[in-house]
Amino acid sequence: MAGERHMAASLITLTTDFGPSDPYVASLKGAILSINPGVTIVDVSHAVGPHRIEQGAFLLGLAWPHFPADAIHVVVVDPEVGTDRRAIALATPAATFVGPDNGVLSAALPDDAREGVPEMGHPVSLPAGTVAHLLTNEALHRGPVSATFHGRDIFAPVAAHLSRGVRLTELGPAVSKIIALPPFRARLQPDGSLVGRVMHVDHFGNLVTNVRAEQLPAPPLLVEIRGRRIEGLSLTYGRGDGLLALIGSSGLLEVAIRQGSAARDLEAGIGEPVAIRSA
Amino acid sequence: MAGERHMAASLITLTTDFGPSDPYVASLKGAILSINPGVTIVDVSHAVGPHRIEQGAFLLGLAWPHFPADAIHVVVVDPEVGTDRRAIALATPAATFVGPDNGVLSAALPDDAREGVPEMGHPVSLPAGTVAHLLTNEALHRGPVSATFHGRDIFAPVAAHLSRGVRLTELGPAVSKIIALPPFRARLQPDGSLVGRVMHVDHFGNLVTNVRAEQLPAPPLLVEIRGRRIEGLSLTYGRGDGLLALIGSSGLLEVAIRQGSAARDLEAGIGEPVAIRSA
Amino acid sequence: MAGERHMAASLITLTTDFGPSDPYVASLKGAILSINPGVTIVDVSHAVGPHRIEQGAFLLGLAWPHFPADAIHVVVVDPEVGTDRRAIALATPAATFVGPDNGVLSAALPDDAREGVPEMGHPVSLPAGTVAHLLTNEALHRGPVSATFHGRDIFAPVAAHLSRGVRLTELGPAVSKIIALPPFRARLQPDGSLVGRVMHVDHFGNLVTNVRAEQLPAPPLLVEIRGRRIEGLSLTYGRGDGLLALIGSSGLLEVAIRQGSAARDLEAGIGEPVAIRSA
Repeated sequence: MAGERHMAASLITLTTDFGPSDPYVASLKGAILSINPGVTIVDVSHAVGPHRIEQGAFLLGLAWPHFPADAIHVVVVDPEVGTDRRAIALATPAATFVGPDNGVLSAALPDDAREGVPEMGHPVSLPAGTVAHLLTNEALHRGPVSATFHGRDIFAPVAAHLSRGVRLTELGPAVSKIIALPPFRARLQPDGSLVGRVMHVDHFGNLVTNVRAEQLPAPPLLVEIRGRRIEGLSLTYGRGDGLLALIGSSGLLEVAIRQGSAARDLEAGIGEPVAIRSA
Repeated sequence: MAGERHMAASLITLTTDFGPSDPYVASLKGAILSINPGVTIVDVSHAVGPHRIEQGAFLLGLAWPHFPADAIHVVVVDPEVGTDRRAIALATPAATFVGPDNGVLSAALPDDAREGVPEMGHPVSLPAGTVAHLLTNEALHRGPVSATFHGRDIFAPVAAHLSRGVRLTELGPAVSKIIALPPFRARLQPDGSLVGRVMHVDHFGNLVTNVRAEQLPAPPLLVEIRGRRIEGLSLTYGRGDGLLALIGSSGLLEVAIRQGSAARDLEAGIGEPVAIRSA
Repeated sequence: MAGERHMAASLITLTTDFGPSDPYVASLKGAILSINPGVTIVDVSHAVGPHRIEQGAFLLGLAWPHFPADAIHVVVVDPEVGTDRRAIALATPAATFVGPDNGVLSAALPDDAREGVPEMGHPVSLPAGTVAHLLTNEALHRGPVSATFHGRDIFAPVAAHLSRGVRLTELGPAVSKIIALPPFRARLQPDGSLVGRVMHVDHFGNLVTNVRAEQLPAPPLLVEIRGRRIEGLSLTYGRGDGLLALIGSSGLLEVAIRQGSAARDLEAGIGEPVAIRSA
């Protein structure tokens, strides 16, 4: 049974909205290394916008598939910490995840488990082979648990215990549903066009959208954003000039400017709509 | 004798004012890993304001208690590098610290060792069980030592040697006093109110003060900052709206705005006074 | 033969222009740890300006000499990814480097191999004892290789395989030339003065130039930048007031202001000329 799986791991990743400036990330690491001094810890991103659950789920979704299946991914984007939102661990065949049950673990679930979910998120049933447990076993927490920092006091210690071989069933009772966001992808319009939106602005100012390569209509394509039109897809950032659209390394449509910032030039940020149709 | 303790450690942390952009932190890590390839290195923060000794001590103080007692904490906030300020290693029952003797290691000492010290810092006697040694043994440095980068050339190599089991007594002569800052806490006024100040602005814009939970007068409380009044304490960031005050995860009073930035809304930064009294 | 060297390493460093915000660095780490879970990964800098090849080479050059000789340094500043620029691994007696063949690996080569190269870079012959191989063996890549992210799909996996003991000769055919930039140093003028330029603005706002200590003319020195004159060199950042010039920890001339930002006060950035002559 999946819940009985032994999760010993050598690798824990961290995704938070703590920013790059504060010692809170180090507190998580200290809590982990106090329990498992031998584990490797990797930062995925600490630049999730404060309390931006969807961005956190999206960024984690870009990174976690590149890690080994025995990695444990801790996510702390937790605006409702200290309220009655649940804390969970989620084990799929591809990875293990620990964090608040507020939708930020959505990226752990396949699309078909998230179909039909409204924008604000909703509880969904777990697919076969995936199990979730509440983190109610206080013996595995760092006491006394603060009201405001469950990352340090619950999520990090639980992940560290899992990495040492503690079983999911020891964490707390199993649950059959967790809160998920709808799949990150563009919506198909009645006229056959797609409407997506910007999910992330990367360091280069490239606009990373939720439009997937496999959703694209037949070429030639026309991409519209902020009243600007882009004809056709480029293959790389290195070709062409001016505004360009391409499929990035994650299989998502990006809007970029060669050696410049599309975000700045278009004055576009997270949430900006983008439309794609056959020209 | 404490100075004879064997400090072999698997963990070194780094706190600097080097910022997130420069290769200087990597130089520290290279210097450490050249001596002890097996040690785990954790970044506490590299976002201490340039040369802000008190902020460095404060941020380290937030993080180090979450690490195992055999961790070695290196601090490089060193405006007087190359002058005659001393370089020291400090071993307490709870951790080992390496850095310049300019007050930045204050967080390693308990309050009662720091009582009565003026704001600018002052030499204090070490408490029982704590030892400090000068870093004068050049065989443990990285030669030739530069005039401007003792972090790389002295502090990091010495920490790496300590992590391999070199004894404190091998570093240089023991000293009985180090420079400390006064305890990080609010001052009690004759009328029973407290006056503290903002010590750190975190990534969320929360104002982290030096007012400790155990200092608070009897409720109901009234918190004043920048001419604004906050009535009562919140339990979490997730409750209430508008400006709120709460005890954060480190047991310190914080001023926050739900899903917003108190620093921006109040135009308040490090040093801003905050007053607390019974309403 | 050098190409036969066994490169098993415990340490991989990363230098990129990915910035501190995005999960792309984590993707590199996941790709590496999927192949060699035991390797230590150190970030040199992810704050190279987008596509700034020369700055990337310069920053790597500041850091890599502080690492053990068996370290593998991965550099991803790769504006022409997906075009026909070559991907290479370069092994010198002092370290191993992996990255695009666009000049960003210049810092791996000694000056005399780079003499006479024009500013834009040019292929140069490898010095004795240094070998380079193309990364054409797709069995060592992460498939399918994307058009836009060779860092994750080629450079990181190849470095991970090298760290496990794969030989350079297994990567692909040897090449005898790689693209290099001219040596990072000031130009000597006919009148005996030096003209250099700012290569990096560090976190303190110090202007790090390409003027080397050993190039300096006889004292007393006069340094000119942005119409300002600085007389003589300081020994440390902690002495003097106002604008000062000193030889920094890397043996390069820096222009600084005591406890302030020279970059801000002078409104000077990367590329700003600096002139030095005997007063």
